Amino acid sequence: MKKTLIALAVLAAAGTASAQSSVTLFGVVDATLAHGSGSVANKTALVPSGYNSSRLGFRGTEDLGGGLSASFWLEAGLNNDNGTGAATNTNNRSTGGGVFTTYARGSTLPSGAVCSATAFTPDGAAGCNVSNTTNGNQGLTFNRRSTVSLAGGWGEIRLGRDYTPQFWTMTIFDPFGTNGVGTYIGLNTGITGSTAVRASNSMGYFLPGNLGGFYGQAQYYLGELASNTANVSADDGKGYGVRLGYAGGPINVALAFSKTNNTVGGDIKQNNVGGQYDFGVAQLMGQYEWDTGPVGGVSHKGKGWLLGGLVPVGVGQIRVAYSQYKVDVTGDPTVKQWALGYVHNLSKRTALYATYAHVTDSGGQSFALNGATTSVNGSSSGYDFGLRHAF
Amino acid sequence: MKKTLIALAVLAAAGTASAQSSVTLFGVVDATLAHGSGSVANKTALVPSGYNSSRLGFRGTEDLGGGLSASFWLEAGLNNDNGTGAATNTNNRSTGGGVFTTYARGSTLPSGAVCSATAFTPDGAAGCNVSNTTNGNQGLTFNRRSTVSLAGGWGEIRLGRDYTPQFWTMTIFDPFGTNGVGTYIGLNTGITGSTAVRASNSMGYFLPGNLGGFYGQAQYYLGELASNTANVSADDGKGYGVRLGYAGGPINVALAFSKTNNTVGGDIKQNNVGGQYDFGVAQLMGQYEWDTGPVGGVSHKGKGWLLGGLVPVGVGQIRVAYSQYKVDVTGDPTVKQWALGYVHNLSKRTALYATYAHVTDSGGQSFALNGATTSVNGSSSGYDFGLRHAF
Amino acid sequence: MKKTLIALAVLAAAGTASAQSSVTLFGVVDATLAHGSGSVANKTALVPSGYNSSRLGFRGTEDLGGGLSASFWLEAGLNNDNGTGAATNTNNRSTGGGVFTTYARGSTLPSGAVCSATAFTPDGAAGCNVSNTTNGNQGLTFNRRSTVSLAGGWGEIRLGRDYTPQFWTMTIFDPFGTNGVGTYIGLNTGITGSTAVRASNSMGYFLPGNLGGFYGQAQYYLGELASNTANVSADDGKGYGVRLGYAGGPINVALAFSKTNNTVGGDIKQNNVGGQYDFGVAQLMGQYEWDTGPVGGVSHKGKGWLLGGLVPVGVGQIRVAYSQYKVDVTGDPTVKQWALGYVHNLSKRTALYATYAHVTDSGGQSFALNGATTSVNGSSSGYDFGLRHAF
Repeated sequence: MKKTLIALAVLAAAGTASAQSSVTLFGVVDATLAHGSGSVANKTALVPSGYNSSRLGFRGTEDLGGGLSASFWLEAGLNNDNGTGAATNTNNRSTGGGVFTTYARGSTLPSGAVCSATAFTPDGAAGCNVSNTTNGNQGLTFNRRSTVSLAGGWGEIRLGRDYTPQFWTMTIFDPFGTNGVGTYIGLNTGITGSTAVRASNSMGYFLPGNLGGFYGQAQYYLGELASNTANVSADDGKGYGVRLGYAGGPINVALAFSKTNNTVGGDIKQNNVGGQYDFGVAQLMGQYEWDTGPVGGVSHKGKGWLLGGLVPVGVGQIRVAYSQYKVDVTGDPTVKQWALGYVHNLSKRTALYATYAHVTDSGGQSFALNGATTSVNGSSSGYDFGLRHAF
Repeated sequence: MKKTLIALAVLAAAGTASAQSSVTLFGVVDATLAHGSGSVANKTALVPSGYNSSRLGFRGTEDLGGGLSASFWLEAGLNNDNGTGAATNTNNRSTGGGVFTTYARGSTLPSGAVCSATAFTPDGAAGCNVSNTTNGNQGLTFNRRSTVSLAGGWGEIRLGRDYTPQFWTMTIFDPFGTNGVGTYIGLNTGITGSTAVRASNSMGYFLPGNLGGFYGQAQYYLGELASNTANVSADDGKGYGVRLGYAGGPINVALAFSKTNNTVGGDIKQNNVGGQYDFGVAQLMGQYEWDTGPVGGVSHKGKGWLLGGLVPVGVGQIRVAYSQYKVDVTGDPTVKQWALGYVHNLSKRTALYATYAHVTDSGGQSFALNGATTSVNGSSSGYDFGLRHAF
Repeated sequence: MKKTLIALAVLAAAGTASAQSSVTLFGVVDATLAHGSGSVANKTALVPSGYNSSRLGFRGTEDLGGGLSASFWLEAGLNNDNGTGAATNTNNRSTGGGVFTTYARGSTLPSGAVCSATAFTPDGAAGCNVSNTTNGNQGLTFNRRSTVSLAGGWGEIRLGRDYTPQFWTMTIFDPFGTNGVGTYIGLNTGITGSTAVRASNSMGYFLPGNLGGFYGQAQYYLGELASNTANVSADDGKGYGVRLGYAGGPINVALAFSKTNNTVGGDIKQNNVGGQYDFGVAQLMGQYEWDTGPVGGVSHKGKGWLLGGLVPVGVGQIRVAYSQYKVDVTGDPTVKQWALGYVHNLSKRTALYATYAHVTDSGGQSFALNGATTSVNGSSSGYDFGLRHAF
């Protein structure tokens, strides 16, 4: 005998008020046959999240009276191709984008040991590279979001692990929603590290929803290093983001900027602006991003943009986007991507989808799609074919 | 104040149709006092899953109309003796049964490093042994099953991590359901590695249920290695399984075969046939298995069989089985096992149970039960005494 | 569309009998801005569990008829500041309090390798220190509690990972409930290792609830080492605890004692007595603890006590406590702590809270609060400011 949770869609939609409390179990299971080809190696895999991110979550709200409410949100990423969960980051520091710390041979490492190795660092010298990231024990990991909130007529205060403000611009104004082989290329080749999507130890404030279409949020997050941390600043991993926007009628536009403190290679700054306009027969959208971040332990600039659209076709939707991202290191390594896809909705919750994408590398880049490997200044193509089910 | 999920047993049993969607939370918590004794060492432990596998799961189905439905299934294994979760495998390769890759000193390893170690390999030469398995980050791990499906009158397509077809023969035609000290010995001493029970990255097809008692399934799974993988084939971990059967009246019979690509020690093949007949006063069952798999990096053959039965006694059930497994390496190492048990049902969901088993090793084997250690060609006995609660 | 679990508070409170079964999803998300200051380093962090331990759990009960019932309880700790889960311990052995095993150079380690390192042990000699703890794979980890129970008029039998009896005295008679910066100092500086709070592999018995106010429990747990374990006793990690108490009217008193087998540094014994009296205008409570445990591989004695109270103020509550803990190694290292806090209840489930605490070290101690570092015989202060939401 099994327990069945009753679908209270009607009751939930009606927004039952006054001390009615509820816990909602929700999720997405999305599986994709993903193929990538490149001049060096191809790869075929079953992967999660080709259309929407696979997840399992629990959330709830309590009406406290007087317009006040408390709520929680626990959401875990799922790799449903093999059953593993998704990892998180506990101190907002990155291994991606060259964000690590190099110690000279003979110097004392954060662990207290003396650097004795002869590893090659980005500049060719001998020394020890120490990852700046701690992942903690993972256990029952709600990496996507784990927050507690207090909300009222003045807005919402939210504490915990949450999305960074600038990520919302990136994902909302991407026809592919930053999922699958067609994802905006700035997400995959950007130089802004671990806070490009989410931040741990965050305190956020959200404007209330009744400002005539204007919306906004501010987020401050801690790196939690001790004040006597050696070799790097005690402020590393600390940062903030701000986002302001307007949505009304067919228009939605937003602007965001952010900064994460980082000693080796300099602070990480990610800023973007985006917008969309719904013409009815099609929805056009675009975004522009300008960043500062460490590459090989040195501060560099990155720039990216996207132009795309969504075209409804019966129960389906055609998705198309062009995007590129360029970094100002020698040669100006650049990736340009075309993506075309179709989503066939079997219901609001279930869809079949297919996406094709092609990237062209230049200036020393060798980025390839879906796990393939390509030569420097080469190209790569890939496709997704999958099934998304939400609950 | 707590939320309580209402038991909708009646509603669920009635099979409510048309757009009625539901999410079901289900599980088993089974704890066993397990003792094993052998000539070298004994062990007493509290372990999970002596009768049924401890688990926590979420599953649901959506009626899409026109006979079509979508569904998901997320099921995690639990070690409720200490609270840890169960692990999974991301690429269908094994550490068990000697499935690893040996690289000569001086050769380049998959990691890009050069093998400098002087480890002893199975044949006594110097070199590096590299595990062929990746476990990924575990986090919120649904290792038992994590799938999304689309089903219709034509059958079911299922994507994700799932049981392999041949495992069903093994567990259904084992009176002990491949759990606890009485488990069919071929599961514990077989040479077929990580795909003996489940496969990640799988795409499965199931025949519809209206074929007059005939049933069947086919599964194809990916190893997800890049096409330029060194030292082993890019197809390692890729494989398939097929199962066909008939169930009608007192009879249930099934045949399954499978193959997983493996370079070092050769491909893994696991095939079995099994059946059961319900005489009313007792249910008789048996199975036969013939395998090919790597042992110490060399391809070998393994054969196993089981004969057993279930006898209802009031609210309880007596379980008995004899099984053995033999590998064709020098000496023909063999394990033979007798097992006898009793399950006392306090309800459909809750049971007390006890199992006793005894193994005899020969031909160089030294397998022992419940964590004990025994000498070569020795013997071992063990018992389980436990409580199973399902929800 | 989402599924909503209906709140059946009334139905659950009424104690619906006879075959009515239910699964309850419950939890706490508590986030605290925590600051600690010390003479060497300060630290500011967002942390979980400043007032109540953050958690997510599933539990349920089945009425078996005739006064008998079966139940399960799966409860996971959450680090909702960054989304990670909490870890558990699989064999009841500790890394804290100096509980490890030292092997001389040249001796064979439990892993089968020979100790070749020249690490410094607590007594300055060369050798290998091997942690006595195994954490297992963590996966979906229900570290706080994972049990299955059978209960009747005779009491309750409970199997799995559960709290140790003596922990209940420690947490119930602490005004801060062993959470946050004001936690009874004996929890943070005690010498009783991993079984101070919970034990894995446990078998527990609880007296029934109808003994005129008297209550009690006994717990036995296994370390699960093989009988031929080298260097340490095969009984390491095995132990027991007993607790007896009386609660009636304004009074609640309890006495507990426990022992965990440990070879290097001697057995761990934790004993305590505590009580509280509700005067209406305030609730007074206190506890006294006397322990034996290993420090640097040598057996030592530890003693701690607490005196505190809770004062209701409108919808809020003032919390105050003084506690200290002393170990009998050279110098008698001692930590003394004052803590003062206020909890403001927005509802039964949601509260804002603030706590301030100050510790004074002497006799060689250098304990500091909330991740700060202080000098030997120094002092430290810290505060929590947080939001707790239960569901």
